[in-house]
Amino acid sequence: MAKNFIGIDLGGTNLRAAVINEAGAILGQARTETMAKEGPAAVLKRLAIVARGAVEEAGLDTTDIVACGVGSPGPLDADEGVVLFSPNLPGWQDVRVAEEMTRAIDVPTYLENDANAAGWGEFWMGAGRGATEMVIYTLGTGVGGCVIVDGKLHRGRDQMAGHLGHAILVPDGRRCNCGARGCVEQYCSATAVAREAQTATERGLDTGLEDLKISEIDARAVSEAALAGSEYCAELLARTGRYLGIAVATAVNILDPQIVVVYGGMAAAGDILLGPCRRAMHEHALSPARERVKIVSAELDEKAGVVGAAGLALMRQEAAEAAAKAPEPVSERDASAETRY
Amino acid sequence: MAKNFIGIDLGGTNLRAAVINEAGAILGQARTETMAKEGPAAVLKRLAIVARGAVEEAGLDTTDIVACGVGSPGPLDADEGVVLFSPNLPGWQDVRVAEEMTRAIDVPTYLENDANAAGWGEFWMGAGRGATEMVIYTLGTGVGGCVIVDGKLHRGRDQMAGHLGHAILVPDGRRCNCGARGCVEQYCSATAVAREAQTATERGLDTGLEDLKISEIDARAVSEAALAGSEYCAELLARTGRYLGIAVATAVNILDPQIVVVYGGMAAAGDILLGPCRRAMHEHALSPARERVKIVSAELDEKAGVVGAAGLALMRQEAAEAAAKAPEPVSERDASAETRY
Repeated sequence: MAKNFIGIDLGGTNLRAAVINEAGAILGQARTETMAKEGPAAVLKRLAIVARGAVEEAGLDTTDIVACGVGSPGPLDADEGVVLFSPNLPGWQDVRVAEEMTRAIDVPTYLENDANAAGWGEFWMGAGRGATEMVIYTLGTGVGGCVIVDGKLHRGRDQMAGHLGHAILVPDGRRCNCGARGCVEQYCSATAVAREAQTATERGLDTGLEDLKISEIDARAVSEAALAGSEYCAELLARTGRYLGIAVATAVNILDPQIVVVYGGMAAAGDILLGPCRRAMHEHALSPARERVKIVSAELDEKAGVVGAAGLALMRQEAAEAAAKAPEPVSERDASAETRY
Repeated sequence: MAKNFIGIDLGGTNLRAAVINEAGAILGQARTETMAKEGPAAVLKRLAIVARGAVEEAGLDTTDIVACGVGSPGPLDADEGVVLFSPNLPGWQDVRVAEEMTRAIDVPTYLENDANAAGWGEFWMGAGRGATEMVIYTLGTGVGGCVIVDGKLHRGRDQMAGHLGHAILVPDGRRCNCGARGCVEQYCSATAVAREAQTATERGLDTGLEDLKISEIDARAVSEAALAGSEYCAELLARTGRYLGIAVATAVNILDPQIVVVYGGMAAAGDILLGPCRRAMHEHALSPARERVKIVSAELDEKAGVVGAAGLALMRQEAAEAAAKAPEPVSERDASAETRY
């Protein structure tokens, strides 16, 4: 019998859930508003409701589900399944999401950060299908990232790997929320693009965005205006794409991936953004990697999070079952050998 | 019986060879000058001579050797064992080092780029012992690098991973030999430091290097002068360390390693270089990775190359034997699954 998994995308605004089988097919979906201001207990209840809703849509029962994955903003501890805190989820402090959800829906639940979930979704069933080495940039409120090495999610020593948005792009550059200066996020996020377009429009420049309220000007509006012929918006996206391409060149020279995926509303601008990005990458990365690596838009859009959360739950459940069967845990590399020079 | 391996470090100036057992102990060593200007055929002959010399020093015969590893400057194709060309080895064009050496010494020989060999040496038997996630910066003529992920050398899709010296540090910055602008190498290599100290000394600044001929001023001289009290040299190394620390922060935020190893003559300056490097990393990397990652000097110095070349030969010989035993080669990830949204 096919194995089925639940994937949940816990966002600051929306909760999405889907039931996905081991081949990656979506069998049922559900969504609701997060209503984050009601606090963690209320949101956890809605997580369980939306999960059950997706299971029902799929014509299944929770007893048909092998495992559940929740992609959440962080910082979080994926091993322990705990959201440590989150700027977009008021009142969240050390919330034991995996444990609470495991109890509420009686399905083993795993927690992942949202960028890794979306990245794994694109790797498994989206733009990264067939690759073994991939990086993804998620251009949103910030810039998220995910690194796939040798077909596996690269978590790093402290689950801190993949923060491509906090690579340093400009030494002593713009101040970032993380405390550093010059992070990629300050030049390439939807927020950074929106802020620049808002300021230019307020100053009376010919941005093509004059019909919108200032607060309505977001990166998607900039993309649409660029596609509709706004020179200002096209130039802003070209500049953003060039910055992104320099950041991508660094990732290519360090990781040598097959594919670089760009995710988020801005990617709708297509070559207006990705053309300058590809050119800047080519100017800054080494040959032959720069000729062979592909920079492409994401394919799954808002589905990437639920697909990836389910896919990672599949991986982790398999690993947990394998570990339960193994006679002894695999030990860390032996550091006690005595050979010295 | 213990398994023994030959490691060779093919440099533009010197050839070093060592016999190393599977526990990493050095059993015998030999070295000679490369005399690179005599061309590839002559250098290949000397490679075989120095390899046999190390075997003799170890009191062994080549029939006691399981495999041989050669660390070489590149670009090269490690799989095929071919040096494509090399700026430091005149006349080298598509030289089939692995094949020629296998024939000459009758021991299966593998080729690696020199930065990976030195990095693997430090990982296996030096500063990285006991780690599973490591990066190394080799501050020499250029800046080399090596990335270890999950206890394995990370080669990337086209064997182009690990070029940490070509991460982009300063957009539109100094022109690099690779064709890009702003590479780490242009700010942190021994060459960059020497050039700056030479220029300052020529201009009559109080560098503490006035007793040397301009051509004698190298990064090691700058380190020694800084340790002897030269304010100019200390400030130059502090600036270099700060640049390196910003580059390291990017690597930490992408890879989250346990340990960052700094290799090369400049590392002799110790905290004069590494203190500002650690501070800049801490200012630019995310918590908790920045608190936990260690930035340390290499331990094996010029032995790292031969140790790592032997260690990688060990890994590759084991992989070759395992592949020969396996009934079928492991296929690439199946990209033909039909599920689509």
